[in-house]
Amino acid sequence: MKRTFLFHCLIFICFSAFAQRHALVFQTDFGLKDGAVAEMKGVVYSLSPDIPMFDLTHEIPAYNIWEAAYRLQQTAPYWPAGTVFVSVVDPGVGSARKSVVLKTKTGHYFVTPDNGTLTLVARQMGIAEVREIDEAVNRRKNSGASYTFHGRDVYAYTAGKLAAGKITFQQVGPKLAESVVTIAFQSPVFANDTVKGNVPVLDVQYGNIWTNIDQQTFSKLQVQPGDVLKVSIYKGNELVYSGGVPFANTFAAVPEGKELAYLNSLLNLSFAVNMGDFSAAHHVKSGPEWSVTVSK
Amino acid sequence: MKRTFLFHCLIFICFSAFAQRHALVFQTDFGLKDGAVAEMKGVVYSLSPDIPMFDLTHEIPAYNIWEAAYRLQQTAPYWPAGTVFVSVVDPGVGSARKSVVLKTKTGHYFVTPDNGTLTLVARQMGIAEVREIDEAVNRRKNSGASYTFHGRDVYAYTAGKLAAGKITFQQVGPKLAESVVTIAFQSPVFANDTVKGNVPVLDVQYGNIWTNIDQQTFSKLQVQPGDVLKVSIYKGNELVYSGGVPFANTFAAVPEGKELAYLNSLLNLSFAVNMGDFSAAHHVKSGPEWSVTVSK
Amino acid sequence: MKRTFLFHCLIFICFSAFAQRHALVFQTDFGLKDGAVAEMKGVVYSLSPDIPMFDLTHEIPAYNIWEAAYRLQQTAPYWPAGTVFVSVVDPGVGSARKSVVLKTKTGHYFVTPDNGTLTLVARQMGIAEVREIDEAVNRRKNSGASYTFHGRDVYAYTAGKLAAGKITFQQVGPKLAESVVTIAFQSPVFANDTVKGNVPVLDVQYGNIWTNIDQQTFSKLQVQPGDVLKVSIYKGNELVYSGGVPFANTFAAVPEGKELAYLNSLLNLSFAVNMGDFSAAHHVKSGPEWSVTVSK
Repeated sequence: MKRTFLFHCLIFICFSAFAQRHALVFQTDFGLKDGAVAEMKGVVYSLSPDIPMFDLTHEIPAYNIWEAAYRLQQTAPYWPAGTVFVSVVDPGVGSARKSVVLKTKTGHYFVTPDNGTLTLVARQMGIAEVREIDEAVNRRKNSGASYTFHGRDVYAYTAGKLAAGKITFQQVGPKLAESVVTIAFQSPVFANDTVKGNVPVLDVQYGNIWTNIDQQTFSKLQVQPGDVLKVSIYKGNELVYSGGVPFANTFAAVPEGKELAYLNSLLNLSFAVNMGDFSAAHHVKSGPEWSVTVSK
Repeated sequence: MKRTFLFHCLIFICFSAFAQRHALVFQTDFGLKDGAVAEMKGVVYSLSPDIPMFDLTHEIPAYNIWEAAYRLQQTAPYWPAGTVFVSVVDPGVGSARKSVVLKTKTGHYFVTPDNGTLTLVARQMGIAEVREIDEAVNRRKNSGASYTFHGRDVYAYTAGKLAAGKITFQQVGPKLAESVVTIAFQSPVFANDTVKGNVPVLDVQYGNIWTNIDQQTFSKLQVQPGDVLKVSIYKGNELVYSGGVPFANTFAAVPEGKELAYLNSLLNLSFAVNMGDFSAAHHVKSGPEWSVTVSK
Repeated sequence: MKRTFLFHCLIFICFSAFAQRHALVFQTDFGLKDGAVAEMKGVVYSLSPDIPMFDLTHEIPAYNIWEAAYRLQQTAPYWPAGTVFVSVVDPGVGSARKSVVLKTKTGHYFVTPDNGTLTLVARQMGIAEVREIDEAVNRRKNSGASYTFHGRDVYAYTAGKLAAGKITFQQVGPKLAESVVTIAFQSPVFANDTVKGNVPVLDVQYGNIWTNIDQQTFSKLQVQPGDVLKVSIYKGNELVYSGGVPFANTFAAVPEGKELAYLNSLLNLSFAVNMGDFSAAHHVKSGPEWSVTVSK
């Protein structure tokens, strides 16, 4: 074996080792029963076999843009800057919604139809820049005749090129205004010795109720473990649940079958039944139309 | 550190970097609730930690060979040549069905019991060569006493060796005739101003009806967006659905709750209810025994 | 490009290529509908982008420590020494259970709350050493205020550092006694021409009954294919099923719809209905309280 070959080989490997290469994280409402997710991953793998691919979830309830928005906000902060998220919950496929890539101030990328999916990450991580995907260049070759699977042909394809460093963020397409389509919801607020907020999502596996009331807002109530909170939960204007719930640091602090209020893993105020299901017991669900008031 | 060590290290890395290493894509009817899939992946990882592993789906309905066949055909074209697919839907485990590897004319590999699973990829991608797995060499060591988990001990093991380049395709085992076991179904045809075809599968997440009527066959009806199609869907000889359905380029082209015909992401004729579930509404399911006729 | 740069680059790559880097395998009862698993993977990826991550399952029934214990035992032997398993089924989160890492005599690592999850791997693979996770060093930065998501902030974080070689096993924390918390169950035994054992788990996808009666214990009954076994299955002291079941090497050896006894892929005695569901037909479930007696 000649040193010359080794030398060129070495140069190649050095470039490979230091090449830009970011993780790509998928989120959809496709489920895992068919081949749609595997088609998207095949497209990305064909672009570059070295892109680390992960799944956020593929079990967003069908067409539920709000939950897609929540899951992005929940998980993105735990991934490093440069990570590329692809979110395809797209009831309006084929309609006028724009296909965009959001770069946040934290350096994360979100590739998605701009239909409200970006509501929460834009607010939480800040908008650095929004670009519209130029399908003339960032669309899978020979996919022009397909009207419906943008997830594979546009979003996964563009995200793969971005994660592999085959295009820069600028090459995604033209720059748009620094805003995204948003969904209205109750922000966390404190006034008159009461905190208000939204029930963005359930901890579905256990039936716990997660609010968007963050630790800082909640702290204004000056609650200690053991204090009993007056809690009212509304769907629009309809009162669905009203009761007194003790605040606890751990589930084990209340007996099995009893309610508790606690700060969840995102440090937001939440409600649960120890070893039970708060959502099923009290018919509380989640979404932008759900709100909660809490006082001592 | 001595240059001599570096030099040998470099030779090793060069060989590693350029070694054959293909993606391995799993498909089963095992579900994800138990450890079977993790056992298979552990076997592959033990062969080589560098094989990129992906999941097509593990939620093929139990024993449904036809759906396994469909999912392979749906997804394989989006993966590069050299990709190794392992499909284990094997109601006849322990019976006389052969364990084979199909190499298609497109350069893809399929490792599976030859029980009909290869029906559609053999037709779509072409048979280059079929080899029977020689279990004397391509079976996991010390697994001889196990009668039942060929997925782990034979299929995943052989696929891992093939993907890692530890065996060549020739070393899989003896060459068989260039044919595979196939399941009968209605091919797409055009005659008497009518197209006929099969309903191979549902878009399960949304309840859409996918046919195997490809764009080229469908184009012979000379349909324009807005044209209303006369659609009849049969299970065997029984008429299950009959109606007039407008052809549209996008779901948004019809009101919510209304039916439409469209070309799906594989460019096959499909039927849906915008924001609804065609399958549930009209009791249409899928499989080799389902057929459809469409005219203007 | 200068040779000096290449030379340093080469040294870096050599170290990288030979660095310790073990697979990390996740198991939880979180399901895949929310973002919890993606948060854990983000934490690990942020520690090192090179750790190969896999999923055992995230569909352990909520709070079912016993099934978590079983799935670890079922799958770990198929992964190489050095593999790091993270199991988070933790009904007692926030209570006094210890957070530990078990190193087995086989060289596998298990990162988990010590609540019974380690019952079966400790027995099967042997305890080499148990260490308590020192949260002062092995807890994600700035996660101190969160009381509830140890899976992400302690278990995934510690496992990631261990898999990446950023800490040694000794750096996990102080050494504990060589024992783990265990759950009682019927061990496989042979006496008076009868074998007894436990029904640890179902083959859920197919409704098959798996016992913990291993091949060696079972062989003392001296059963041949075709022999009919007298089988009784109990929940505690209650007889749930009693019947005669033929022993067979393959499912195909009995007609469709008929029961059979067989050795499963782990070579344990099991019961099934060919192309049917034994569990549903006879109301047999699994867990530490279930037992079985078998004679000729």
